[in-house]
Amino acid sequence: MIVILKKNTTKDQISQFSDQMKEIGLEAHTIVGEAHTIVGLVGDTSQVDIDHLRDMEIVESVQRIQEPFKKANRRFREEDTVITLENGLKIGGGHFQVIAGPCSIESEEQIVSVAKAVKAAGATLLRGGAFKPRTSPYAFQGLHSRGMRFLLQAKETTGLPIVTEIMDAAHLPLFEEVDIIQVGARNMQNFELLKHLGQVKKPILLKRGLANTLQELLMSAEYIMASGNEQVILCERGIRTFETYTRNTLDLSAIPVLKRLSHLPVIVDPSHATGDADLVRPMALAATAAGADGLIIEVHNDPAHALCDGAQSLTPDEFVTVMNMVNAIRPYAETYKRDM
Amino acid sequence: MIVILKKNTTKDQISQFSDQMKEIGLEAHTIVGEAHTIVGLVGDTSQVDIDHLRDMEIVESVQRIQEPFKKANRRFREEDTVITLENGLKIGGGHFQVIAGPCSIESEEQIVSVAKAVKAAGATLLRGGAFKPRTSPYAFQGLHSRGMRFLLQAKETTGLPIVTEIMDAAHLPLFEEVDIIQVGARNMQNFELLKHLGQVKKPILLKRGLANTLQELLMSAEYIMASGNEQVILCERGIRTFETYTRNTLDLSAIPVLKRLSHLPVIVDPSHATGDADLVRPMALAATAAGADGLIIEVHNDPAHALCDGAQSLTPDEFVTVMNMVNAIRPYAETYKRDM
Amino acid sequence: MIVILKKNTTKDQISQFSDQMKEIGLEAHTIVGEAHTIVGLVGDTSQVDIDHLRDMEIVESVQRIQEPFKKANRRFREEDTVITLENGLKIGGGHFQVIAGPCSIESEEQIVSVAKAVKAAGATLLRGGAFKPRTSPYAFQGLHSRGMRFLLQAKETTGLPIVTEIMDAAHLPLFEEVDIIQVGARNMQNFELLKHLGQVKKPILLKRGLANTLQELLMSAEYIMASGNEQVILCERGIRTFETYTRNTLDLSAIPVLKRLSHLPVIVDPSHATGDADLVRPMALAATAAGADGLIIEVHNDPAHALCDGAQSLTPDEFVTVMNMVNAIRPYAETYKRDM
Amino acid sequence: MIVILKKNTTKDQISQFSDQMKEIGLEAHTIVGEAHTIVGLVGDTSQVDIDHLRDMEIVESVQRIQEPFKKANRRFREEDTVITLENGLKIGGGHFQVIAGPCSIESEEQIVSVAKAVKAAGATLLRGGAFKPRTSPYAFQGLHSRGMRFLLQAKETTGLPIVTEIMDAAHLPLFEEVDIIQVGARNMQNFELLKHLGQVKKPILLKRGLANTLQELLMSAEYIMASGNEQVILCERGIRTFETYTRNTLDLSAIPVLKRLSHLPVIVDPSHATGDADLVRPMALAATAAGADGLIIEVHNDPAHALCDGAQSLTPDEFVTVMNMVNAIRPYAETYKRDM
Repeated sequence: MIVILKKNTTKDQISQFSDQMKEIGLEAHTIVGEAHTIVGLVGDTSQVDIDHLRDMEIVESVQRIQEPFKKANRRFREEDTVITLENGLKIGGGHFQVIAGPCSIESEEQIVSVAKAVKAAGATLLRGGAFKPRTSPYAFQGLHSRGMRFLLQAKETTGLPIVTEIMDAAHLPLFEEVDIIQVGARNMQNFELLKHLGQVKKPILLKRGLANTLQELLMSAEYIMASGNEQVILCERGIRTFETYTRNTLDLSAIPVLKRLSHLPVIVDPSHATGDADLVRPMALAATAAGADGLIIEVHNDPAHALCDGAQSLTPDEFVTVMNMVNAIRPYAETYKRDM
Repeated sequence: MIVILKKNTTKDQISQFSDQMKEIGLEAHTIVGEAHTIVGLVGDTSQVDIDHLRDMEIVESVQRIQEPFKKANRRFREEDTVITLENGLKIGGGHFQVIAGPCSIESEEQIVSVAKAVKAAGATLLRGGAFKPRTSPYAFQGLHSRGMRFLLQAKETTGLPIVTEIMDAAHLPLFEEVDIIQVGARNMQNFELLKHLGQVKKPILLKRGLANTLQELLMSAEYIMASGNEQVILCERGIRTFETYTRNTLDLSAIPVLKRLSHLPVIVDPSHATGDADLVRPMALAATAAGADGLIIEVHNDPAHALCDGAQSLTPDEFVTVMNMVNAIRPYAETYKRDM
Repeated sequence: MIVILKKNTTKDQISQFSDQMKEIGLEAHTIVGEAHTIVGLVGDTSQVDIDHLRDMEIVESVQRIQEPFKKANRRFREEDTVITLENGLKIGGGHFQVIAGPCSIESEEQIVSVAKAVKAAGATLLRGGAFKPRTSPYAFQGLHSRGMRFLLQAKETTGLPIVTEIMDAAHLPLFEEVDIIQVGARNMQNFELLKHLGQVKKPILLKRGLANTLQELLMSAEYIMASGNEQVILCERGIRTFETYTRNTLDLSAIPVLKRLSHLPVIVDPSHATGDADLVRPMALAATAAGADGLIIEVHNDPAHALCDGAQSLTPDEFVTVMNMVNAIRPYAETYKRDM
Repeated sequence: MIVILKKNTTKDQISQFSDQMKEIGLEAHTIVGEAHTIVGLVGDTSQVDIDHLRDMEIVESVQRIQEPFKKANRRFREEDTVITLENGLKIGGGHFQVIAGPCSIESEEQIVSVAKAVKAAGATLLRGGAFKPRTSPYAFQGLHSRGMRFLLQAKETTGLPIVTEIMDAAHLPLFEEVDIIQVGARNMQNFELLKHLGQVKKPILLKRGLANTLQELLMSAEYIMASGNEQVILCERGIRTFETYTRNTLDLSAIPVLKRLSHLPVIVDPSHATGDADLVRPMALAATAAGADGLIIEVHNDPAHALCDGAQSLTPDEFVTVMNMVNAIRPYAETYKRDM
């Protein structure tokens, strides 16, 4: 950690600052320049409150060298985290999975029929939302506990593990038989929710916020991990940019960057990122080529009558084509190498 | 509402679409162009699910003409909303208030002393956080219920109404004696929290999210209002841009735009927006000149030792200067005119 | 084109507006709603000045349905544009090419040696900058005419066609033997330069600006084409976002979107987009998978001593690996289909 | 300047690096941490090519402490730059001026009539564009040399100094009698144009690019100044954000930030920033309150029939009101203090 001190900082102030740093276990090395004094802090700085340093009277700016996340950090755990579900399915460390299903659960018939279709096409997990975050209070908000019941029915019928989104920790009792709990983009920095999920013994699929950096995503993973749950799957789902032809902009460089910084699995959601069914296939292929550990894709038996996000949903037939092309490209994809 | 239909839509499909629209109370008027058919929907469209329309097979795109918010909309309620607190203090409709206090409550002594100082300088409400949203799980998270106790002590001592942030609806019992409940920028789209606050009988200070549009801010206000609580104060607190000299970019055009679109009061937080005490005064003056209904400013008795955000906190003395300059400029400020 | 008229527009004003539209060859169809009047304009609107409409007293807003670009538009020319160079090399329409070379030309020896290396690895065009746009006036600005001479020497030695950037139309005489003239991201909206390049009989490689939309990119292509030069290659090279681990964010959905909107070839620059040699390979693979018509990659014989952008340059050996992996993935890549 | 070296850098490499730094006049001070070695470079680093350092094999990252601009830097010239025009008018250092006029020059009659109106209302400079940067090649591009003639006529008639935009250095001969040459937002990083303007003996009004940082703006000013012309006026005119109710987002914190960093005058353009005549007045007041050295405002005798940007133009009557309110607020505005 590097601290730049303000002009006119006195020798006494610098020596007092060094003493304070020593108290929290850090050695302070000082370089006196023409306009500024630079202090290098040596030691374990991962739990130093950078804002607190920044606010000290003599401090002009502070720069971390070590990343502020620890449990999520590749530096402290070299081998890939592999998430293993109850049915033995693995994600990460070379295990690639495709999660598919409708945006919203609309009826038992719908979710069971989509579940059968995506299973037949090769998907290994089923997604479907019972609690839907919608910008408008007047938009369809999901079937809630009734939807959860239909989803569990689809799990029972097909044997597919299920992934579904939570919006309030108070709903956790409904998630007992869910295999992976999803945190949506808008809740990525709902820190109270993250802390609650840190106490759950289930994998958490954490989506990147619409305008959040990768470091912020990893800090949110750190919230869950620091609270006791190390089973976190990171998900790139598009970020907000000035482009309007796509709903969001899929940031595929997030894959190699996250893999370099962290040991956690990284999956990609091309459906929400683009908001456009025609773009799902090229983006699914690109994500696979770039080394993702999996995909999450919206599939609906009848996109034109979907209660939400139909425009980005594939039909089961289109999904079969995507699965075939993704499987064909996988042997030629990028793989993370430790010496990278 | 305007719906653009895809090329090759048949007459039968168009007539079927018109029938569907009639069922939900809308008249469909059709213009057949060379490449597209345009349908104008006439009637009350504020509660139409635009995503659902967009997802229909024959639809290429949909554009709202009416705003999607109703209760927050100036069109449906011309006169300014005026919020009245228990002690009679009013915000909005020409009533300008300054909320001041520390970022975090650190001790009873600290909050009481700052409360006295800001009251003496002319602030009419006290702010202070007991629950702090922090990017890192290792940063100071606030004193929680102990902090709330100290804040209430400061209220009792000075008579100032208090404003403090909520992060989880489960904490609501601690907020019973709070005068205004704040929703932070990161929770602006925590829709479950907003719904809970819609059932509270207290004013809600709703901060704009870091990368959210003004329409999204108004839709979040609409969540609270549609759930039963119409006492919402909007707060511009800076948005994320590429600029790095300031922490965020204060969007002061938000003031006249929000006042044109909505009858709700609009206040400005120059402290969080800039993250820099030197910039608080010019931005407080600018916000006042542009017609804000109030300011929320961080003041700390000892910024250099603040447990959070010291760099942006004013000393009580600096705050006195700001108050004097703000009061001097107010008579010359922009005022919203109905015919604007 | 849809025009929303202001409330209180009179019948006379509407009829006068219809007459004005008729004069420029458009039929105006009117729908009178409760709060607004909607006018659909039918006819060829591609050359209507939308700002002019917007500024009319009775107009509230205007929305295009047709795209504002014409010569670059897939709607008016279905088959892919294929660019053919003097040596017979083709780009676009299924012809995939890799352009490689150093950021800056530093010496004759350097550019000739890199040229030989990239040719041996399978690159089919050579890049190298003699005019370098640099944020600081104190940074290395390129070797200018001397650099051009070295580049031509490398062309002569290896037979590789060359691509190099122009920053000022006054330099055009130096570009006579250049095969493809590049317009950099910062000059994408240097409209005077674009008009000059519209009078040149050489392909233009047009890079997307750092914060520009795809529609703006196509409008800049339209500038060149409308001035007489239809040989334009579009290049996605990363856009500015809030992410800091990468220099820019590569927007790979630009590939299928541009191919849907336009018949022009689309290539991708993973080197400038990421600014990080480790990320070039995964992003080159992803771009290929998503259906790009080519890649432009920085290769330097000695990245550690490069005069610019060494951190993002591959060594010739690394480039061989990238070429091999790109060639392996190509048969499985997305291909644009007309019915998409 | 701080350089972080990669893990595994050897002592020999560090000592070799120190020697290289000594050659360019910098002392290298080394701090060896657990994971990294930090090198502080002491001396005049303003002309060091930071990219070159970054690209060295042993370097992980580089951070400037000193700003990279020198001639524009307040640190090296404490007193405000005051620009003096031929007619004696001053801008900066407490001299506040209002530039007004139409977006485009449309006819001699129009520009002369607007010039008289804005002069009567108190404007001290006239603006008007003869060369217009337009996104579409099919939009009105300005009257070019004919427009310049009309503008000069208006100058002669009213005695107002004139400000007009240049898009190509080749047009400089037409600008001989222009008082201030404007560089538009899209040309802020047209470095060749900036270099040409560095050789002109006239003040340059440099507009901030739509997605550029304040440091980039100052580096572009530095281009002009380093080429020999120190008369630069900085102009904030709104940046691109996700907000859509306004055309751009006016960043008023730019005023105090630029004044702290630089001695150059700072003016604000509320017309282009908002694109909406109703927002010009509140934003003009806010900019004045925040300490701007001047305003540039669009005024048109007949906004509804303007050939460009009518929606953001004030009528002469509206402009009178703005001038009166701005003049009323000025005595209470923020003023830059050296000890800030």
